[in-house]
Amino acid sequence: MMAREPHRVVVIGGGFGGLNATRSLAPADVDVTVVDRTNHHLFQPLLYQVAAGILPPGLIAPSLRSVIKKQRNARALLADVSDIDLEQRRVHAVGPDDRPLDLPYDTLVVAGGATHAYFGHDEWAEYAPGMKTIEDARHLRSHILTAFEMAELATDPKERAEWLTFVIIGAGPTGVELVGQVAELAHLVLPKEYRSVDTTEARILLVEGAGAVLGPFDPKLQRYTQHRLEKMGVEIRLNALAVGMDDESITIKGGGPDPAATETIRTRTRIWAAGVQASPLAAMLAARTGAETDRAGRVLVNPDCTLPGHPEVFAIGDMVSLNKLPGVAQPAIQEGRYVGKVITSRLAGDGQPRPFEYADKGSMATVGHRHAVADAFGMKVTGWIGYTMWGAVHVLYLIGWGNRLGTIYTWARGLTFSRNRGHRLITFEQANSEATGPVAPRSAPPAAGVAPPVQEQPPA
Amino acid sequence: MMAREPHRVVVIGGGFGGLNATRSLAPADVDVTVVDRTNHHLFQPLLYQVAAGILPPGLIAPSLRSVIKKQRNARALLADVSDIDLEQRRVHAVGPDDRPLDLPYDTLVVAGGATHAYFGHDEWAEYAPGMKTIEDARHLRSHILTAFEMAELATDPKERAEWLTFVIIGAGPTGVELVGQVAELAHLVLPKEYRSVDTTEARILLVEGAGAVLGPFDPKLQRYTQHRLEKMGVEIRLNALAVGMDDESITIKGGGPDPAATETIRTRTRIWAAGVQASPLAAMLAARTGAETDRAGRVLVNPDCTLPGHPEVFAIGDMVSLNKLPGVAQPAIQEGRYVGKVITSRLAGDGQPRPFEYADKGSMATVGHRHAVADAFGMKVTGWIGYTMWGAVHVLYLIGWGNRLGTIYTWARGLTFSRNRGHRLITFEQANSEATGPVAPRSAPPAAGVAPPVQEQPPA
Repeated sequence: MMAREPHRVVVIGGGFGGLNATRSLAPADVDVTVVDRTNHHLFQPLLYQVAAGILPPGLIAPSLRSVIKKQRNARALLADVSDIDLEQRRVHAVGPDDRPLDLPYDTLVVAGGATHAYFGHDEWAEYAPGMKTIEDARHLRSHILTAFEMAELATDPKERAEWLTFVIIGAGPTGVELVGQVAELAHLVLPKEYRSVDTTEARILLVEGAGAVLGPFDPKLQRYTQHRLEKMGVEIRLNALAVGMDDESITIKGGGPDPAATETIRTRTRIWAAGVQASPLAAMLAARTGAETDRAGRVLVNPDCTLPGHPEVFAIGDMVSLNKLPGVAQPAIQEGRYVGKVITSRLAGDGQPRPFEYADKGSMATVGHRHAVADAFGMKVTGWIGYTMWGAVHVLYLIGWGNRLGTIYTWARGLTFSRNRGHRLITFEQANSEATGPVAPRSAPPAAGVAPPVQEQPPA
Repeated sequence: MMAREPHRVVVIGGGFGGLNATRSLAPADVDVTVVDRTNHHLFQPLLYQVAAGILPPGLIAPSLRSVIKKQRNARALLADVSDIDLEQRRVHAVGPDDRPLDLPYDTLVVAGGATHAYFGHDEWAEYAPGMKTIEDARHLRSHILTAFEMAELATDPKERAEWLTFVIIGAGPTGVELVGQVAELAHLVLPKEYRSVDTTEARILLVEGAGAVLGPFDPKLQRYTQHRLEKMGVEIRLNALAVGMDDESITIKGGGPDPAATETIRTRTRIWAAGVQASPLAAMLAARTGAETDRAGRVLVNPDCTLPGHPEVFAIGDMVSLNKLPGVAQPAIQEGRYVGKVITSRLAGDGQPRPFEYADKGSMATVGHRHAVADAFGMKVTGWIGYTMWGAVHVLYLIGWGNRLGTIYTWARGLTFSRNRGHRLITFEQANSEATGPVAPRSAPPAAGVAPPVQEQPPA
């Protein structure tokens, strides 16, 4: 009797969704291939700490191979998916050195994630970098630190002020955490390191299209966050939109008594944290299955995360729209695990499990030095208690005890004896090219046929 | 009575020489400005551990500002020196954003270091990257790891073998430490992570122009090193020269019974550790002071590290030739401290101190997993005792207790419970551009008027 070929599962993307789908298939009689265009699983919620020079990238981006090393029915491949043939059930991808790759599947899990979006203003990518990849974070780090270096070199006070002005667009968790870090750098870390410049004179603005910071959080936590940030010297502009920008300025509409008034602020650093847009794979799947997409280009999936007419194709995470879940780690993690169970259950002939149900584990965000807001475990907490809760949860979800201990060590070092930031490199290449002037977008360029981005910021 | 302007010292370069000169001037009545084209002090002896994915760059590259934060008479500037005007006593430099900078000095300390050199074969830079900067090390890391990824993707066994062949050119300490790391990756770290490929089948070659590995070391330690490397599966070719290379091969002359015979080895990874060449500032100073340069482009300085006819200009470290000292950290450190003392002594009117005298503190190199050779403290030791000694000395010379503890933690994690490498990123950009094909040189391009490189490898 011939041995039966195991059921082939291809997982596109090694983020929260893809990795959890892969891991939950460990006991199943399947062959799993997870394809990612980098070699690592990125723990996105701590990426802003790389941009701030706190954590080294390695602690939050373990190699996918090492993570699934012991799962003998899984393997990882480094390649960028270029096409999905739903009829022939094959994934086409391109590896390094333009190596074409052709992966047949019996079941497909698509977890392509999302990237930042500029509301149809793609030219802003040049002036306001966002943060989705390790490269993005390294670039932001170099950009922010170089601005202080340039302020130290500047002889014209007007120019110096421009280098010391930082504008963060978007006051969701990423924007709030980033603005807190810029304030911490300016007020706590850098002051004694500069001789010509007083870094505490830095002007730090947070621009938000909605009427409150941290949109989906409880109003009490929103007010606390706003108060804390203002105490740290952050100017907050609510109901304000970016309507224009160039290499040396940004123009804001609203945010004051007159909602139609515009103001141009001279600044050499603009950081984009305002909008996301699903991976182009979402639009591709939608076009080929007749599924709908939402404004953020996310594909609408069935209650069991499959695509219409294709029970063998699952889509999960930031690139899908399901029950209005937010684009954060927990839905992707839970969907990944759910999909693994569905596949296992089907192969065992146990029939179709119940539709996906999301267990809300709450939300958290740091608000500068040793402070955070947390809405979790049925509590709404702030301050250092929130911060401790935030730290414990994030360390717990990191992969590998080595990375957990390393992160605890690095945080302990920064919170107690030294306010230094240990990982703040500006390399020769960065100092001489990308660090200051207009920058090329650092994330992967979206493929053709991309959907219009989500308008978290209403159109100007 | 008007306050006297403090004596202005400009230090070019924040490496071992420049940083130690700066620090030893802390008690003096001077204003020190240290200019570097990156923002960090690089601890070069551990750079190969970044290339091997062991250490994150931040632990061995603390920001210069943070290092001299408490030294109130010193400041750091991020700029690349373009010219030195010895008559007007001014240093011209270029900061980020092409910002011109003009620094007058009373005393100048030039510590511009060295970069790798290709014996007049500059085109080899494209095919055999070297390792002098953090960028170089990140690039090498991505290059080595991507070779294993490509082997996993390859379907043709011949091509797979090419991706699994690694050739390191030069068996000095850098070459020996790097080749040991590649062997460790192939034999200890990666084997269980790949499904199609047996990484222990990797072919790893070390090519050396001289008749022994670790040239300046004791013959007993040389023999031990050769034996250890061979036991780890490294093929060693002594008396062998690289005479040609392209994207997929390298041609070696000698290394066998017939010294004139050539052999072409198919390989996708060549790493250059064979030659160094002084910073172009050495040639510039030589041309303007009438000083001589040696074959490596190093400028010959007076016994007190000054330049002929310019007692106010010191040159130190890898870019100078003095008493045939090797281009490693200790001479640069000691020269930096010496120069600081000379300047302090002159200002105090204490006259000229004695010429620089080098205190040989020995030499050490790791030889793969948990082994090292050390010729220090009057002992010649090998194995894990050598390794412990090596580790203790290197941790001691790192800057900052935070970096020391972080390094000890990272090493302990890798030496005991896990053979994993925590810091081995391949980013999307790296996977899609520079990681595999021919590469542009990653170090700063040498300026015009550069001296011919040193022929550590005799001409072919």
